[in-house]
Amino acid sequence: MDSTQLVNLAGRLAASEISAAEFLRLAAVEVGQPEIATVDLERAGRCGFPEVIYGPGKTAEAITQIAAQLLANEQRVLVTRVEADKGAELLRQFPAGRYNELGRTLRIDLSQPPAETAGQVAIITAGTSDLPVAEEARETLAWMNVRATMVHDVGVAGPHRLPERLAEFSEADAIVVVAGMEGALPSVVGGYVPCPVFAVPTSVGYGASLGGLSALLTMLNSCASNVAVVNIDAGFKAGYLAGLVATRRRK
Amino acid sequence: MDSTQLVNLAGRLAASEISAAEFLRLAAVEVGQPEIATVDLERAGRCGFPEVIYGPGKTAEAITQIAAQLLANEQRVLVTRVEADKGAELLRQFPAGRYNELGRTLRIDLSQPPAETAGQVAIITAGTSDLPVAEEARETLAWMNVRATMVHDVGVAGPHRLPERLAEFSEADAIVVVAGMEGALPSVVGGYVPCPVFAVPTSVGYGASLGGLSALLTMLNSCASNVAVVNIDAGFKAGYLAGLVATRRRK
Amino acid sequence: MDSTQLVNLAGRLAASEISAAEFLRLAAVEVGQPEIATVDLERAGRCGFPEVIYGPGKTAEAITQIAAQLLANEQRVLVTRVEADKGAELLRQFPAGRYNELGRTLRIDLSQPPAETAGQVAIITAGTSDLPVAEEARETLAWMNVRATMVHDVGVAGPHRLPERLAEFSEADAIVVVAGMEGALPSVVGGYVPCPVFAVPTSVGYGASLGGLSALLTMLNSCASNVAVVNIDAGFKAGYLAGLVATRRRK
Amino acid sequence: MDSTQLVNLAGRLAASEISAAEFLRLAAVEVGQPEIATVDLERAGRCGFPEVIYGPGKTAEAITQIAAQLLANEQRVLVTRVEADKGAELLRQFPAGRYNELGRTLRIDLSQPPAETAGQVAIITAGTSDLPVAEEARETLAWMNVRATMVHDVGVAGPHRLPERLAEFSEADAIVVVAGMEGALPSVVGGYVPCPVFAVPTSVGYGASLGGLSALLTMLNSCASNVAVVNIDAGFKAGYLAGLVATRRRK
Amino acid sequence: MDSTQLVNLAGRLAASEISAAEFLRLAAVEVGQPEIATVDLERAGRCGFPEVIYGPGKTAEAITQIAAQLLANEQRVLVTRVEADKGAELLRQFPAGRYNELGRTLRIDLSQPPAETAGQVAIITAGTSDLPVAEEARETLAWMNVRATMVHDVGVAGPHRLPERLAEFSEADAIVVVAGMEGALPSVVGGYVPCPVFAVPTSVGYGASLGGLSALLTMLNSCASNVAVVNIDAGFKAGYLAGLVATRRRK
Amino acid sequence: MDSTQLVNLAGRLAASEISAAEFLRLAAVEVGQPEIATVDLERAGRCGFPEVIYGPGKTAEAITQIAAQLLANEQRVLVTRVEADKGAELLRQFPAGRYNELGRTLRIDLSQPPAETAGQVAIITAGTSDLPVAEEARETLAWMNVRATMVHDVGVAGPHRLPERLAEFSEADAIVVVAGMEGALPSVVGGYVPCPVFAVPTSVGYGASLGGLSALLTMLNSCASNVAVVNIDAGFKAGYLAGLVATRRRK
Amino acid sequence: MDSTQLVNLAGRLAASEISAAEFLRLAAVEVGQPEIATVDLERAGRCGFPEVIYGPGKTAEAITQIAAQLLANEQRVLVTRVEADKGAELLRQFPAGRYNELGRTLRIDLSQPPAETAGQVAIITAGTSDLPVAEEARETLAWMNVRATMVHDVGVAGPHRLPERLAEFSEADAIVVVAGMEGALPSVVGGYVPCPVFAVPTSVGYGASLGGLSALLTMLNSCASNVAVVNIDAGFKAGYLAGLVATRRRK
Amino acid sequence: MDSTQLVNLAGRLAASEISAAEFLRLAAVEVGQPEIATVDLERAGRCGFPEVIYGPGKTAEAITQIAAQLLANEQRVLVTRVEADKGAELLRQFPAGRYNELGRTLRIDLSQPPAETAGQVAIITAGTSDLPVAEEARETLAWMNVRATMVHDVGVAGPHRLPERLAEFSEADAIVVVAGMEGALPSVVGGYVPCPVFAVPTSVGYGASLGGLSALLTMLNSCASNVAVVNIDAGFKAGYLAGLVATRRRK
Repeated sequence: MDSTQLVNLAGRLAASEISAAEFLRLAAVEVGQPEIATVDLERAGRCGFPEVIYGPGKTAEAITQIAAQLLANEQRVLVTRVEADKGAELLRQFPAGRYNELGRTLRIDLSQPPAETAGQVAIITAGTSDLPVAEEARETLAWMNVRATMVHDVGVAGPHRLPERLAEFSEADAIVVVAGMEGALPSVVGGYVPCPVFAVPTSVGYGASLGGLSALLTMLNSCASNVAVVNIDAGFKAGYLAGLVATRRRK
Repeated sequence: MDSTQLVNLAGRLAASEISAAEFLRLAAVEVGQPEIATVDLERAGRCGFPEVIYGPGKTAEAITQIAAQLLANEQRVLVTRVEADKGAELLRQFPAGRYNELGRTLRIDLSQPPAETAGQVAIITAGTSDLPVAEEARETLAWMNVRATMVHDVGVAGPHRLPERLAEFSEADAIVVVAGMEGALPSVVGGYVPCPVFAVPTSVGYGASLGGLSALLTMLNSCASNVAVVNIDAGFKAGYLAGLVATRRRK
Repeated sequence: MDSTQLVNLAGRLAASEISAAEFLRLAAVEVGQPEIATVDLERAGRCGFPEVIYGPGKTAEAITQIAAQLLANEQRVLVTRVEADKGAELLRQFPAGRYNELGRTLRIDLSQPPAETAGQVAIITAGTSDLPVAEEARETLAWMNVRATMVHDVGVAGPHRLPERLAEFSEADAIVVVAGMEGALPSVVGGYVPCPVFAVPTSVGYGASLGGLSALLTMLNSCASNVAVVNIDAGFKAGYLAGLVATRRRK
Repeated sequence: MDSTQLVNLAGRLAASEISAAEFLRLAAVEVGQPEIATVDLERAGRCGFPEVIYGPGKTAEAITQIAAQLLANEQRVLVTRVEADKGAELLRQFPAGRYNELGRTLRIDLSQPPAETAGQVAIITAGTSDLPVAEEARETLAWMNVRATMVHDVGVAGPHRLPERLAEFSEADAIVVVAGMEGALPSVVGGYVPCPVFAVPTSVGYGASLGGLSALLTMLNSCASNVAVVNIDAGFKAGYLAGLVATRRRK
Repeated sequence: MDSTQLVNLAGRLAASEISAAEFLRLAAVEVGQPEIATVDLERAGRCGFPEVIYGPGKTAEAITQIAAQLLANEQRVLVTRVEADKGAELLRQFPAGRYNELGRTLRIDLSQPPAETAGQVAIITAGTSDLPVAEEARETLAWMNVRATMVHDVGVAGPHRLPERLAEFSEADAIVVVAGMEGALPSVVGGYVPCPVFAVPTSVGYGASLGGLSALLTMLNSCASNVAVVNIDAGFKAGYLAGLVATRRRK
Repeated sequence: MDSTQLVNLAGRLAASEISAAEFLRLAAVEVGQPEIATVDLERAGRCGFPEVIYGPGKTAEAITQIAAQLLANEQRVLVTRVEADKGAELLRQFPAGRYNELGRTLRIDLSQPPAETAGQVAIITAGTSDLPVAEEARETLAWMNVRATMVHDVGVAGPHRLPERLAEFSEADAIVVVAGMEGALPSVVGGYVPCPVFAVPTSVGYGASLGGLSALLTMLNSCASNVAVVNIDAGFKAGYLAGLVATRRRK
Repeated sequence: MDSTQLVNLAGRLAASEISAAEFLRLAAVEVGQPEIATVDLERAGRCGFPEVIYGPGKTAEAITQIAAQLLANEQRVLVTRVEADKGAELLRQFPAGRYNELGRTLRIDLSQPPAETAGQVAIITAGTSDLPVAEEARETLAWMNVRATMVHDVGVAGPHRLPERLAEFSEADAIVVVAGMEGALPSVVGGYVPCPVFAVPTSVGYGASLGGLSALLTMLNSCASNVAVVNIDAGFKAGYLAGLVATRRRK
Repeated sequence: MDSTQLVNLAGRLAASEISAAEFLRLAAVEVGQPEIATVDLERAGRCGFPEVIYGPGKTAEAITQIAAQLLANEQRVLVTRVEADKGAELLRQFPAGRYNELGRTLRIDLSQPPAETAGQVAIITAGTSDLPVAEEARETLAWMNVRATMVHDVGVAGPHRLPERLAEFSEADAIVVVAGMEGALPSVVGGYVPCPVFAVPTSVGYGASLGGLSALLTMLNSCASNVAVVNIDAGFKAGYLAGLVATRRRK
């Protein structure tokens, strides 16, 4: 596949020299491959945000094809769980994209960003090992155009740390809490705030952490009323849910 | 314990004849027992809503004591997981309370309800056996003064049922989906709507449903981006989270 | 082992120049090894289809030996879970074979295929990552001489996708549904059709997908009456069961 | 609720004195309750057989209401998992019904049964404790108008028992195998027959049988290619799937 | 068995009128039964404290026999997990005993208690439902002659509660923390104190609390270095371990 | 370490030129390392057979040291779970040893083997993938000087295979059955024979085989009375137990 | 059913007044019921001992019928897991039977017991709560005519107890070890003896004992080579296996 | 980063030429990076010992930064779970550090060690494969300045080994027992001693050892009263807890 041509086409599309439909037709010719995945182009209308591309099990070619279709329809692209080498290959196809190495995400947005962000979300981590998952959440919020504040390394065994930093997230519309090992942080955060807390268990830990299952169970059993839970290491999903709350709030 | 006296005191408090502090002191004398639980009276200020009383493992006396403290501080009372006989006993203490037999909840609100509700939440169930959990969510929303719509019995194996009723929840600020057995409904609902979906797995099922664990896992692995999960049968928690989203939305 | 000789012998057998018994005797001499596996040559008579060779834990030599015995008895060969390098080695032994890289299967059929296929099966996948398992099912059906239709990438979170493609599988004698993550697709498909649905959970997913266990549980708890389940990633078994139904139907 | 009136109405409906629509309207008046469950009356057209009523979590009133709607639309009724006392109550509502105490099922069919059955299914049990689950399967097949043969108590530890009885199920279109404890019987049966085997693990056993999970795992891992699995104790589902195969076969 | 005689004998033993060996011989005659359990009378010398009697699966007769042997050897008796009716029966045998209804323990000590206790342990609970387990720990410490302070109902979702009560356990030699549901409290306590924390998960909770397994996993994965864990609901064991630390400390 | 010297010493010991004690002292000097494991030299007297060396987590040096001590005391050596490269290294130290590549065992016996074997054990496998575990059992029996017969590839889905080969194991003192996947073979074998069956689940399988747990559960729940179970892949242990029965039998 | 007649018939059979075949025919007439279970009368010839009747899920009538057939064929009867009231009912049918209340077994032997027992087995328990399972093993051995020695209450936390009683089981042909909670006893016993140890985990314990699963895992992972494991609470199976070893030993 | 400068600064700090605050400021300039982790410098005052650095998920740079801060505040450094190459890199930064290859720990202490140790702890292992975990415990105790005795390779299947070595740990203030496989050793040790036993399950084993879960469950269910448990392979935590007991004891 000749990436130069694809980039040129994308450039012309961005400059409104060609329509989205033209771009799509021309790109398909350029790529010379049958369609390998069905893109849900109506999701943005139905659900508020475009389809997000889940990277694992997809080749760079497949991701390129889907991303091109989304861009041709003037939708912003977010790809999650992209390994470094696949990320580099995709950046060659989409030089305007931004790859986050820690969060393993790729964002491509050919449109003009809006003048201001649409709400405010805080992302809180228990330890430094939880950073990659937190970064995935942060990138998701950036893609949704929601402002995100990061509060790092406030694990519950240092009990004075969290109260000291309360001011940093007291105004949030929603909070993402990322924690591995025993996963107790969301319960403690939940007790301080009047907004929903989306808890992400991480696979950080060893032995009886059971790859994150232990933290997951902790969060599901939280005695704080405002804690909802997503899958292990699912930074994207927690970010997306918090972003939904924040954007609705500010409408 | 003489319940007549307690009721009188509560009446005088409601009539502003005595202050909350006086009520509390007098009630303690009346009850003649040491304090058996610590009530978190500042939660309403910190978290937006008062402390909710979790019924299991507490005697009617203990619940009465906690509820009296909350009422004395002009906070609305919600008690969850109250069995029928305990509910009857509590209603004798608090004749103004409302007991929901299906949802096993008791609500007591001595204040004047606001003129209008603060938002809109839809509660969707997969089957009739999921009703008790849905009722717990509905009562929670009523206690939060949020309008709730119920959409019953739209399990995924009747694939035409859900689309037919889409209009009933398309305007919701947040959706609570209650499902047992395979727990697939939240994923399907999530694909239709632009708001957060709070999924509640129920313990309805047999064999490999593992008391709700199977539905819980399904929901955690949902391929829909806007699905967050709470504990098995935790209708209260899902209702509370949806209510938080709805009330923030309308502020 | 001298593969040229073995191929010659197979050719002579195919040309009816030697009998199956002669082939077997000569091949054993050529191979010069004691028998390392017991082939169930009567299975075709007893169960309708010949024994299928499960690849893992068997060397290319062992597979060659078993395949040669089956071919010598005029039975069609299907080998599953064959890694690429072992597949290449086997193709050198059996140039008439067809290796499917995605499905990791090898088919060898020296007989003339029948004029028409014996029934119709639809294979439906939830996402592109489920393709390898679906391909294993498709190859199994080809080996059984059953026509298979593929319907890809119709996950439940895009709720309009499935109904649009209903026509493609409404005539099927049986349906194979392949899905990872939450595994909800079989329930939804089951609600549309009057034939058996064989559900295959895949190990696609992360975190609480537990290597496919979560999807497996979902399918076992399906509220659709016509959903039966096979082992995780067992594309072969689902294809085989669907093929049994289809061939009986058309007898 | 006055059951006499309801029975009269059903009788008039059966005698074609009133139409289904009339019956339904009159019955609703008689019952005097809002609709408490949504009946999927189109399932028979879409899936070949009417909706089946899952008993647990439904009151006798709710079941009566759903059954009346089905009967009013000339559909046959099957209720599963009906405890003895609820069964007695329902028989008073529907004197034409047949309650199977062992299988805990209730069948009601006001139409004339067809002259001959539509296929043949064998039900095989490992031990006498598996009988209730086998009976549920047998009643399901009777409701589908499929002939069922029972072969009891042929557990694998008596290895001569099964071959002796081979003739009884060699002509079956599909086989249901019901087994608890180690659940090995389906694999052995599968090796003898050319048709699909629907395996039902039962919760019979103790200790490491884990309420049927052990048998379930055994069946999922079966080395026989023609074994599909349903949920623990799901006699209904296995019977239904086998019935689907048998009725298609004979069309 | 005539309890009067047994009590008399015990009284004479306490008054040093008969030796331990005489008591034992006479009691055996009185009881008229063969020995049904082997009492480890040397444990007090080897391990510092006498054998403790685990109640379940033992009749009141068996417990009486073992307790009599211990008392005859001037050892203090502690029986755990004694249901109310068995407790009443044992109190008739040993009127000097103290039965704790909430903690389900029976203590019998015929010796003169020492002038002062041997150390200090704090017992902290997350919620009122954890009280029975905490009481078992407290009774164990009383039997070991260790002073115990109780701090109740300081769950992590009320984050200000614990710091307010820090003074009550800052001097403890060891701390027992009792918590169900998510079991996060030990981690938070552990971050405040310089002594060992013995964490007891309780079976309080529902759904994904898995009968206490979830809290157990949380505690095992605690990021606080000073948290050790005992079995679910094992108030006795945590109390015993804390008592060992406290008594060694003060020697 | 100079292996030549060690081999010389072992040779002189075998030739009775030096005593065991001298060998040990000299070998320690040669090896020049402190003792890194405690060898239980009295086990042969106490339990009938010498200590067996479990390979994993031990360096070749550590194994050499332990083996040398055993040989110096005229005890036969068996090392299990020895990877190929470690095996090669050990063979250089002990040229008289026999390394079994498939079973990953090393046997060293410097003594004269007895004129005849002590009993008879049959080892039966379900499939060819179970061979490595069966070989470990066979080597163990060889080390115990017990005659072992191998019956391969008689999985239950080929139901005629086992009866055909009954004669080969009808005289056995004990039987080892090795099976992965669903692990049903021991139950079937158990129904044919009057001796103990030691069942070994193997980690052969995929998906719901859970690394052998599924087969393990099957075997524990066996309805055959004479089936005992050992750990997953524990060929050594099953061989050892069968050998104990066989040698006692023939005493 | 008229039990008097049945008893009379059994008496005449015992007195050789009627043949076994006559008894069977007459009893069937008397009972007036179709055969409800298939008795494996050839098992004694094939496996050395008659079929054993597993009580749960069988009515007293069904057990009576099976037992009568066995007795009619001069086979000894053992029924396991018989609750007290069913046991009383069966004793009325078979006055010569012996019911063991603790072990919940019923033995009926109309033949003359042999002059001497056939071997020697020791049964060792960890605690008094393990007695019922040990009694089931003991009754099984009595039924097999094997001498059994009981060694009670030698749990590993009293480390001196076991060595003191070593002499009582040093001559055993096989040992049954029954233990709940952590299940460590079989490993310790295994290290002292040269014979096979059959370990029975019991469901005694609480919390993380998981109904016996914890003890089961302990025993499967035993570092003692001579420990085989049976299902939780499976006293019968361990007794049977030990009996097989003992009777072969003494032949 | 220029490590020479950092080492010089550390040297000047150790020589009191610069204050801790100066060191920290200068080091931050030298390192030229923003702070990547929050160090809890007050932990030593609050909990008795400084914060310990958990290695996984942290780069050598991050560890260096945290360690430098601790040293600048005159706190001793312990880093756990440091792989060999990262350890080598850290030693270049901190030449005064001690890296333990087996235990994968790094200790750095720039202060003068106290004249005598503060207590006594015994560390007991079941087998040689448990050594790495035991070494982690030993290094932790060295860092706490507590004397540690090692007793190796005394697994329960060699029952005479432990009593022989009793003298070596009879004076301990606390005992750490490290065991994999069945994990029975802590119970046996617990029965001999009057002090707390901190049990560490290890991931040593195979099959049903489930990566250490089996040993973990064994220890939680221990029938010895003085056994507390930590996470799988958590040598650090057990050492730390034992050290807390020992240092308190000797104050």
